[in-house]
Amino acid sequence: MLYNHSTSNIQSLIEHAKKHAISYTIDPQQREARAITKHSPATQNEVPLVVLFPKSTGQASVILKACNERRIAVTSFSGGTSFGGALSATRGGICVSFERMKAIIALHEDDMDVVVQPGLGWVELNEQLKDKGLFFPVDPAPGASIGGMIAMSCSGTNAYRYGTMKNWVISLTAVLADGTTIKTHHRPRKSAAGYDLTHLVIGSEGTLALVTEAVLRLTSMPRNLHVGIATFATLRQGVDVVVALQKSGHQLEMLELADGPQMYAVNRSGLARRRFDEVPTLFVKVAGPSERVVRDQVLAMESLARGHGASSCEFTSDAARIDVIWGARKCIGHALVAMKTRPTDLFVHSDCAVPISQLPALVEGTQRLISDANAVNGSPSAGKWFCANVGHVGDGNVHSSIVCPAEDKERAEAVLREVARLALRLEGTVTGEHGVGLKLRDALAEEVGVDGIQAMRRLKMAWDERGILNPDKVFRLDASMAKL
Amino acid sequence: MLYNHSTSNIQSLIEHAKKHAISYTIDPQQREARAITKHSPATQNEVPLVVLFPKSTGQASVILKACNERRIAVTSFSGGTSFGGALSATRGGICVSFERMKAIIALHEDDMDVVVQPGLGWVELNEQLKDKGLFFPVDPAPGASIGGMIAMSCSGTNAYRYGTMKNWVISLTAVLADGTTIKTHHRPRKSAAGYDLTHLVIGSEGTLALVTEAVLRLTSMPRNLHVGIATFATLRQGVDVVVALQKSGHQLEMLELADGPQMYAVNRSGLARRRFDEVPTLFVKVAGPSERVVRDQVLAMESLARGHGASSCEFTSDAARIDVIWGARKCIGHALVAMKTRPTDLFVHSDCAVPISQLPALVEGTQRLISDANAVNGSPSAGKWFCANVGHVGDGNVHSSIVCPAEDKERAEAVLREVARLALRLEGTVTGEHGVGLKLRDALAEEVGVDGIQAMRRLKMAWDERGILNPDKVFRLDASMAKL
Repeated sequence: MLYNHSTSNIQSLIEHAKKHAISYTIDPQQREARAITKHSPATQNEVPLVVLFPKSTGQASVILKACNERRIAVTSFSGGTSFGGALSATRGGICVSFERMKAIIALHEDDMDVVVQPGLGWVELNEQLKDKGLFFPVDPAPGASIGGMIAMSCSGTNAYRYGTMKNWVISLTAVLADGTTIKTHHRPRKSAAGYDLTHLVIGSEGTLALVTEAVLRLTSMPRNLHVGIATFATLRQGVDVVVALQKSGHQLEMLELADGPQMYAVNRSGLARRRFDEVPTLFVKVAGPSERVVRDQVLAMESLARGHGASSCEFTSDAARIDVIWGARKCIGHALVAMKTRPTDLFVHSDCAVPISQLPALVEGTQRLISDANAVNGSPSAGKWFCANVGHVGDGNVHSSIVCPAEDKERAEAVLREVARLALRLEGTVTGEHGVGLKLRDALAEEVGVDGIQAMRRLKMAWDERGILNPDKVFRLDASMAKL
Repeated sequence: MLYNHSTSNIQSLIEHAKKHAISYTIDPQQREARAITKHSPATQNEVPLVVLFPKSTGQASVILKACNERRIAVTSFSGGTSFGGALSATRGGICVSFERMKAIIALHEDDMDVVVQPGLGWVELNEQLKDKGLFFPVDPAPGASIGGMIAMSCSGTNAYRYGTMKNWVISLTAVLADGTTIKTHHRPRKSAAGYDLTHLVIGSEGTLALVTEAVLRLTSMPRNLHVGIATFATLRQGVDVVVALQKSGHQLEMLELADGPQMYAVNRSGLARRRFDEVPTLFVKVAGPSERVVRDQVLAMESLARGHGASSCEFTSDAARIDVIWGARKCIGHALVAMKTRPTDLFVHSDCAVPISQLPALVEGTQRLISDANAVNGSPSAGKWFCANVGHVGDGNVHSSIVCPAEDKERAEAVLREVARLALRLEGTVTGEHGVGLKLRDALAEEVGVDGIQAMRRLKMAWDERGILNPDKVFRLDASMAKL
């Protein structure tokens, strides 16, 4: 018996929580809300039996120690915006929610760091930093919280300029499966002190430890913002501009590349406040410490775009026009959902990243795979798929989306599996930013091989011998996990 | 019996190596040279019995598998410039040297990455990249090689601008203790694919795996170089300028801060080609994609320096004058050694890093600790210590050096232990860039606690059950390692 989720065992945990004044709920809706979300669907069998709300590292430690002793599986929750099933309580068990740990514990303006609890959202954090001229640049979905962002090693449109979550966490306080609390570092920007436990925990999707406090690096708020768009006849031209920009040494703020169908979806949705040409479009953000620096970057970008045959290239520093242009980039997710012709239609997407030189090959190959899947198949839905690509082009990370009838689910997912294989052949990864969860476990095994998975599994087992922390995520547990 | 280093067992390994056409040497001088260096002294008992020279990942895997089966301890070697005893063969055993694996396997100019073998030096790498306008920015000691730089998670003067080794490795091919070969990622700039094994291996000092291939990020070569120095009445003023610079959003190339005694040592050594004021001195490097951008940074720096009461501030873009100014920064190590009045004198130094706001407190506290140690002690050497501080100030990383008579060794080391404790009280680390090795194991335990060490030990045990890889480094092995 790997886990004991009997009523009496769960009741014993609840009594233990009460004794330590730890809040909890067994309300079905509350429990469902921590496992089943729009982006991370789960079945009724995959909902936790209790949700506990620790208010401190100490309470989180009490919970894990008790769960480990009782062999109770544990999922964790903060903002609930992750993809891919990281939230599913596959074994039932309990959920530790950090929604009541959302404080800023200390802000060190001169050191440009901040100590926060995991339930704090990055949007709220930036709201509180604004007046100080400080900025936390990792920007996944607006509802995401620091704890989940660490667990999933997230990124977003700022990653091209600022890197991912891995670049912005100085140290962590984390509770291991047996309740042991570790602090990976203190607050220095740089350290060579022993194994890098910080980075080991980042991206481990709640399977190695629960983060209860984090020291985050901050940067200065981008100033002198300019936004531009350049349009091209081919996606490859857009990529070539980005390659040339990187070699030039100019560091822009954001570079996002959408293909023609993507711009069609934006126009069709009516969500943007102007019409765009339905051709490959590069969205650019530029900022810098002075107007002179920004001017220089804009000139470099314009010259490179023209040199690579851009059909148009426009920049603006006018706030209203920035909103119009960047609004088009921001509405892309909703514009894709709006491509559904029936409410039951599916919207699935990939998250591959490849070396940037391979990005055109990835997108062209993806288009081919999708059109092949549509063309050769005699099913009634043939030709009914809508497909579009948008990429964090500076990172080589592209989301290829398919909107299709529900009955084509299997076929669409099979195509995305082939897209992931194509990314691997192009020396890329199956997940640039969304993480593995349940959905990409087999793809991860194709990426790092049996030996890579086993190396990860050994680490999991070293820290979580009973396999209680978010079981079944990232990779499958195996017999050796079940040392009971 | 943890290890079996009997003559017959070692001979059996040698026969195995011969069978696989793996080069080796048992020459005493050759063996000593891989364990005993200027910066990493060891005793004759701490020299490997054989040095093996794999030429491929496959050969490295053959060696480790054979050593694991035979219970033979393994140190590794590439450039041999590390501090702190990471090279010592504390148990004897064998050394795997990567000196014959120093190829550039593939250079991807458009992707700005390069695939290299571990024996390649970073200086040689940059030499080969120069014509392409590309640059690998991690700059430890000139003789350092990529393998050792990964093992020690090194940095250098460029770390303020570019970060440490952790920021420049995209993926690794590494051989585990049992000979299993893993590849942590492919080549995409960004990945959320499973546990971050890359970062786990970086800084593990050869105790978790041997790296046989690395994909490194590159950047564009800095252009339009300007170098400046600003002098101050107090160290704190220099730090204040750096804090203000960081908040301004300007990203300079390098920021190094030396105290008055450090500048005295530079003058006295005669190694610099001009005299400097013997006061706190900030060395600054500025570069950028255009002359305009650089000009802007220089103006910002000059204005901040003046605003914080700099006694002088000068900048130059003249190559000869750059050499004179930066030459003074580069000669600091030799200038300190030259402060020895007798050949037997000791030169010891700290490697603490603290949040930047705490840097003045660290330096002032260090000066107090040192002068107390000199003043209250009635030994004949009292007052004979020379002490100076130089810091990678942007990282809060400072090297406090003591040059003292050999008979004061214990007392000087005791002071450095107190300096490390002071750094911890200031929320810092005992090692900003040099690593733990043998020397800082107790200090690391003070930094991350018994639970932190145990968390690291469990990981070591998960990947290296028999404890063959660089035993005794980073932390002590314990009974549980010895599963034989």
